[in-house]
Amino acid sequence: MRDIAPLPLSDDDLQALDAHWRAANYLAAGQIHLLANPLPDGSLGPGHIKPRLLGHWGTTPGLNLVYTHLNRVIRARDLDALCIWGPGHGGPAVLANSWLEGTYSETYPDVSRDAEGMARLFRQFSFPGGVPSHVAPETPGSVHEGGELGYSLAHAYGAAFDNPELLVACVIGDGEAETGPLAASWHSNKFLDPVRDGAVLPILHLNGYKIANPAVLARIPEQELDELLRGYGHEPIHVTGECPTTVHRSMALAMDTALDRISLIQRTAREQDVTERPRWPVIVLRTPKGWTGPAEVGGLPVEGTWRSHQIPLPEIHDDPEQLRQLETWLRSYRPGELFDERGRPTAQVLACVPEGARRLGATPHANGGLLLRELPVPALEGHAVPVDKPGTTLHQPTRVLGGLLEEIMEATTGRRDFRVVGPDETASNRLQDLYRATGKAWQAEVLSTDEHLERHGRVMEILSEHTCQGWLEGYLLTGRHGLFSCYEAFVHIIDSMVNQHIKWLRVTRRLPWRRPIASLNYLLTSHVWRQDHNGFSHQDPGFVDHVLNKAPEVVRVYLPPDANTLLAVADHALRSRDYVNVIVAGKQPCFDWLSLDAARAHCARGAGIWDWAGTEDGSREPDVVLACAGDVPTQEVLAAASLLRTHLPELSVRVVNVVDLARLLPGEEHPHGMPDAEYDALFTRDKPVIFAYHGYPWLIHRLAYRRAGHRNLHVRGYKEIGTTTTPFDMVVGNDLDRYRLVMDVIDRVPGLAVRAASVRQLMEDVRLRHHGWIREHGTDLPEVAGWTWTG
Amino acid sequence: MRDIAPLPLSDDDLQALDAHWRAANYLAAGQIHLLANPLPDGSLGPGHIKPRLLGHWGTTPGLNLVYTHLNRVIRARDLDALCIWGPGHGGPAVLANSWLEGTYSETYPDVSRDAEGMARLFRQFSFPGGVPSHVAPETPGSVHEGGELGYSLAHAYGAAFDNPELLVACVIGDGEAETGPLAASWHSNKFLDPVRDGAVLPILHLNGYKIANPAVLARIPEQELDELLRGYGHEPIHVTGECPTTVHRSMALAMDTALDRISLIQRTAREQDVTERPRWPVIVLRTPKGWTGPAEVGGLPVEGTWRSHQIPLPEIHDDPEQLRQLETWLRSYRPGELFDERGRPTAQVLACVPEGARRLGATPHANGGLLLRELPVPALEGHAVPVDKPGTTLHQPTRVLGGLLEEIMEATTGRRDFRVVGPDETASNRLQDLYRATGKAWQAEVLSTDEHLERHGRVMEILSEHTCQGWLEGYLLTGRHGLFSCYEAFVHIIDSMVNQHIKWLRVTRRLPWRRPIASLNYLLTSHVWRQDHNGFSHQDPGFVDHVLNKAPEVVRVYLPPDANTLLAVADHALRSRDYVNVIVAGKQPCFDWLSLDAARAHCARGAGIWDWAGTEDGSREPDVVLACAGDVPTQEVLAAASLLRTHLPELSVRVVNVVDLARLLPGEEHPHGMPDAEYDALFTRDKPVIFAYHGYPWLIHRLAYRRAGHRNLHVRGYKEIGTTTTPFDMVVGNDLDRYRLVMDVIDRVPGLAVRAASVRQLMEDVRLRHHGWIREHGTDLPEVAGWTWTG
Repeated sequence: MRDIAPLPLSDDDLQALDAHWRAANYLAAGQIHLLANPLPDGSLGPGHIKPRLLGHWGTTPGLNLVYTHLNRVIRARDLDALCIWGPGHGGPAVLANSWLEGTYSETYPDVSRDAEGMARLFRQFSFPGGVPSHVAPETPGSVHEGGELGYSLAHAYGAAFDNPELLVACVIGDGEAETGPLAASWHSNKFLDPVRDGAVLPILHLNGYKIANPAVLARIPEQELDELLRGYGHEPIHVTGECPTTVHRSMALAMDTALDRISLIQRTAREQDVTERPRWPVIVLRTPKGWTGPAEVGGLPVEGTWRSHQIPLPEIHDDPEQLRQLETWLRSYRPGELFDERGRPTAQVLACVPEGARRLGATPHANGGLLLRELPVPALEGHAVPVDKPGTTLHQPTRVLGGLLEEIMEATTGRRDFRVVGPDETASNRLQDLYRATGKAWQAEVLSTDEHLERHGRVMEILSEHTCQGWLEGYLLTGRHGLFSCYEAFVHIIDSMVNQHIKWLRVTRRLPWRRPIASLNYLLTSHVWRQDHNGFSHQDPGFVDHVLNKAPEVVRVYLPPDANTLLAVADHALRSRDYVNVIVAGKQPCFDWLSLDAARAHCARGAGIWDWAGTEDGSREPDVVLACAGDVPTQEVLAAASLLRTHLPELSVRVVNVVDLARLLPGEEHPHGMPDAEYDALFTRDKPVIFAYHGYPWLIHRLAYRRAGHRNLHVRGYKEIGTTTTPFDMVVGNDLDRYRLVMDVIDRVPGLAVRAASVRQLMEDVRLRHHGWIREHGTDLPEVAGWTWTG
Repeated sequence: MRDIAPLPLSDDDLQALDAHWRAANYLAAGQIHLLANPLPDGSLGPGHIKPRLLGHWGTTPGLNLVYTHLNRVIRARDLDALCIWGPGHGGPAVLANSWLEGTYSETYPDVSRDAEGMARLFRQFSFPGGVPSHVAPETPGSVHEGGELGYSLAHAYGAAFDNPELLVACVIGDGEAETGPLAASWHSNKFLDPVRDGAVLPILHLNGYKIANPAVLARIPEQELDELLRGYGHEPIHVTGECPTTVHRSMALAMDTALDRISLIQRTAREQDVTERPRWPVIVLRTPKGWTGPAEVGGLPVEGTWRSHQIPLPEIHDDPEQLRQLETWLRSYRPGELFDERGRPTAQVLACVPEGARRLGATPHANGGLLLRELPVPALEGHAVPVDKPGTTLHQPTRVLGGLLEEIMEATTGRRDFRVVGPDETASNRLQDLYRATGKAWQAEVLSTDEHLERHGRVMEILSEHTCQGWLEGYLLTGRHGLFSCYEAFVHIIDSMVNQHIKWLRVTRRLPWRRPIASLNYLLTSHVWRQDHNGFSHQDPGFVDHVLNKAPEVVRVYLPPDANTLLAVADHALRSRDYVNVIVAGKQPCFDWLSLDAARAHCARGAGIWDWAGTEDGSREPDVVLACAGDVPTQEVLAAASLLRTHLPELSVRVVNVVDLARLLPGEEHPHGMPDAEYDALFTRDKPVIFAYHGYPWLIHRLAYRRAGHRNLHVRGYKEIGTTTTPFDMVVGNDLDRYRLVMDVIDRVPGLAVRAASVRQLMEDVRLRHHGWIREHGTDLPEVAGWTWTG
């Protein structure tokens, strides 16, 4: 980044900026309205207007102004810059600007930078078979779809982390600013390292209105707003006006002031080792909603009001006066001065546009796969736990994973392209070995009692799942790697964010120019069955159900039952691309079932028979299948298998463990789905299957309902029964315990009910004894607490 | 509320406050640790300690301080007060205080206010069969479980709306303050009417640490924090210290200053009609985490650090030194001065405690059902649309509902116990008739171009689904009524909040002393099939799946297919208690299918045969069942039925519409579930069922997998395929269109494939023609756009 003194704009510069802005405004209005005749020489006729007007004008001129002025400073300072366009409805603006700078035509050659391409640009917008009305995956230069609103600033910080030479501008609409996720993400500046990270320049765009209401931040006194922004740790710079010339001058000065300040902050931190947290600049841009559009329509004010949010001329198909208004509006930009006879932007329009990859639409940071390097995942052998015999030793699976993550963190010390995020739970989730390789990013005050805080740390902790998710998305989308460790129940907080990320990935996978990025990896732990401290409010295994509703080409769900399977699954997830991987694993001591080799083989299959755990002799199909998915259900199934071995030794029992949940789906429903023949070979077509599942039991039915054996499938899982109690009391309460599973077997294997009545009574008795014991002692029955697998 | 001048505390008052605080601290520490021997006369032995120590000490002494000082001002000023305890882990504090004031024993007589009751109080805490470790539904005086964190302040505002005499204190932990929902909810003060609403007094509790990290707001300079709070529209009052005497004096003064200021604000607004938005006070309470607990353990600092978050003495079972530390700690409160020989609190301890319903644990506002009045839902006849013949007229269902809501809003003008919330979408969702009865609450600046803003309005719009949800929950929990209208896709933003509310209701339904409250009613509109403007990012029908995972006794889902069915469903939902009702309905013009009488009968059944739409003659079972749920699927099914009538008149077709989705479940799975016989009578046991469903198709399988006819059930729905396009293109893209449904019928009715091959080809041809037409014209095929039901 070069520094230049903020000089007043020359008149030529001003004219050029204004020409670019007018061109962008023209192109945006054209996209919203025109089906044909993009540069009308005669009058506009009804046939030139799109039959359905679908787009948002209100935010567009402001975004065009920002794009134009970013162009200027990128050129003047040779900036490496990325912009996050929070007001996602401003699709027409970003499309217009990328067409002007040429990146649109480079990405989509049929939309050439001339009159013919302009006609295509206009027609395709919000038109069936064309492009969406939002800034979207299809938009060059974008890593952020603004549809849902709230995530722009967190995405911007995610992009800036570990990109010390990058400037990330971030336009925040005053509507978006009211959302919780956005409000929380202002404090991201306490986690931004001026030495190793890039800069974020928030541009709060106050155009005053949302869909139908004034925006809160636009209606508090400027002094109060300044207090708020200073309270967030920023220094506000105001740009206010409706006269374009005044606003251009003011905006150019604001940009220069902000960038000089950023440059000074970075030099001070990098060269003089100053560690005081800086006050980063923020630009407050206050311009009218629907600026330069129709001032009044039908006697009502439109420019500067919520009426310009979408289509300022809603009756244009029926009202010739509104058609004339559109014509006047389009002519007001003087397109004849902006485009040559072949419809190409003039040299004056393009004077401010940067070159090559410096263009906002061409930055590789917005197509992160271009920058992505393989993550150095080490050999698992160095972290695996030895397993000579299943079920005799205990490890905390996430603690074991922590060692692997530590090594990755260590190996990326120089590259700095791996981060772990979590809402204050990294150590609680037993990943504390990470702190041997790095600290927790922290730029605020540090006290002598603090531990592991580090100015350059790459573990990110803030008590906001939204901010964690937004940071990580921004980091991944710009070509890096990461993991989000979260309490299982509270990952629902970002249900809607992961929706949007999955949708983004689903679309980018169909765009050849978008290169694959690292997967978004969730480690969900502190799960439903082990909420001893926290009880009912912390019990919810439904995130898996939520993500399995989404695009199957993107979504993967794993439930490793022990430490080595967790390693094998994590190894795969961390190397994968363009997925959302959900890994549910325990942090409490858990029996080790599989050696590393066995774990790898089992995870590669995704589901398989654990023959050491069953009693079938191979001569015929078993009498019953005990299936399990998840660490606690696996333990209960193995304990049940052990009970059956003791009490009903003649029964032929098969144990099936499922790690990769999507394997239960038919092959045509999910890339990991298994063919019917394989399913039948595992689960049989007609034998009773007692399936102990980690989450809501009906999910298993939803996955397996097409299978021949479905009618014999009986699933146990979490039924929203819980409180602060012991682990075993939790499984008893939800009928997932070993004794209940044995009873299920007896109830469902034909002919067994009578023969095994006494065994069933024995099981019932232990459950009854449990109920008494737990209330008396507050601990689990000794035979449960002391249980180990005896084979 | 009485005003009193803030006098310095007398020494007697100070002693009494401190005694109460010490007693609460003693009781809290006792709950966390002691299994027996609550007031040890001799030494504590290992047998007196709970086998599993599960609780959170860190936040507890601060909460005890707040409770104690709220007691003082409630008594002194005869306040009607409620407190929201944001740091939900502080269960021991709120339990201790409600035991001290007597409400605990009144609610749970077996936990008497004496030594025996104290023993029970201690033992039950975080003990199997006892009470959860959080402030929970079981806790007297609580409307807020702090487990998930983020919602305290929005709940507080919800409680304060339309309760002009109520003071709602709200303790916000510095961890919670980092969350998005909390950060957004600070701006609620722009919506609080000093005339018709009560007051909210936020108490930001900075104890410095979360689980393992410092809290952001505790580590920014005080001046920066003040700027932030002023930027939120508050005037901060600081209480800082660790010397109890100093803090008591400072806290008493802060409380008095804040309450005097609130009183002045309210008088000014109410008596002098001053409309300027006031700057409400906020108290910043900065005391050590784990205050008064062990200062050091094993040579490491504990008090004042994150190490006191949960159990300050984690090795107490194995380390006799830690057991001695507990003893010293408990004795430090001098329990002999606080409790008499029978374990009852002394007069000095109780000197600050208010009387009767003024006690925080006894306020009826925290048991809102006590205050709830029937909502005056008017006769539907005044709003129903006339339907002489199905499918010939069009109405916007939500617009029709808006008329009903207007009348309710009007009828509650004096009572003020009904509000409608939504994220800037009330008019977009076509409920604008509400503005004839009330305006949108707004206390910030108003411009001449604004419409419908009103100081005393009861429509609440902020672009934060979290804040809307939090407000409404707080409003309902304190005994009022309301409705949340939301874009269908973005209601996922509050997935985790509705989880917690459903969990709350599930627990309260089992507590006899908790009186039923009004249901939380969602109107989800601007739904997946009609996102013409917004495309893929705005398409997600999965909220229904999410809530159907939760407690069936709480959850209800309705998909009314037209205006009159929406009225009938809304009528039921608005009168209901203790439910979460999810109503999915369209805002676009939709055919009217049922007259009001027919709609009522149909909704009462929840699912039924539309015999006017089918072609069966009653002599035998139909050849095929066309089932539908949702407005767009219903239209496509009826269009398909019409096509079949024309092209395959000999086919016997039954049309079934499902309004109440849970009816598909077995009776043992949901209170609305239907018996198998009824299901079989509707859907047959063996005929093909082609089910057009509004959302993800597998949800229907998940509900119906136990039915005999399940193997013949073929469901069409949303498959995550969408973009900015026309409504019909959306259904074609997802294979839900009428032509595809006819093809499904032909493919699945035995023997029909050959006979109807030409009809099938005809259907295929229209679909092909559609694909060409839409890309050419951007509109739907004329025969689709102009379709009406012809019977």
